[in-house]
Amino acid sequence: MAIPLEQALAVMVSTFHKYSARQGDKFKLSKAELKELLTKKLPSFQSGAGECDNYLDVNKDNEVDFQEFACFLACVAMGFNDFFKDHCQKQPPCTAQFPVGSSP
Amino acid sequence: MAIPLEQALAVMVSTFHKYSARQGDKFKLSKAELKELLTKKLPSFQSGAGECDNYLDVNKDNEVDFQEFACFLACVAMGFNDFFKDHCQKQPPCTAQFPVGSSP
Repeated sequence: MAIPLEQALAVMVSTFHKYSARQGDKFKLSKAELKELLTKKLPSFQSGAGECDNYLDVNKDNEVDFQEFACFLACVAMGFNDFFKDHCQKQPPCTAQFPVGSSP
Repeated sequence: MAIPLEQALAVMVSTFHKYSARQGDKFKLSKAELKELLTKKLPSFQSGAGECDNYLDVNKDNEVDFQEFACFLACVAMGFNDFFKDHCQKQPPCTAQFPVGSSP
């Protein structure tokens, strides 16, 4: 039986490669690939203004490798966690619906 | 319709809180909570010897907060990614089954 947390990590990897393989270096996201991934796969995260964007293309090579992508996702998850904690502290017990419309 | 990558981030948050809420600080994992989480939710990752363990309890307060947990998961995902890349480079096209037994 698949375990949700392990599945979640596999989704992070497979989503990255689904987009990175489209053009150029198949193991890195170009700016166009990154934009499409964020638009289609992370619409709840408003990219372009958040501090998490600082994790994308840290080495300034105009591409995003998996390490940069994983650190970016960790940052986004921290934002989800803050949302959960805020809700939980205001309205215990904790029954927050995540902003992604999912409560696994 | 739920989006897999957003669901994956929500699973990271909800799994953390499922275990962190059990005893002591409900927003941090104790050593016992962490051990149980890793055993039950990340059995494919052999904890105790990997470099990712360095991300757990970075501040040495004997607890793991969500930031430390998220960075740890990012590190584990990088390991999954290396597995995928190795397989993909040896046997293209890339049809790797992830070590977690899931290929979303």
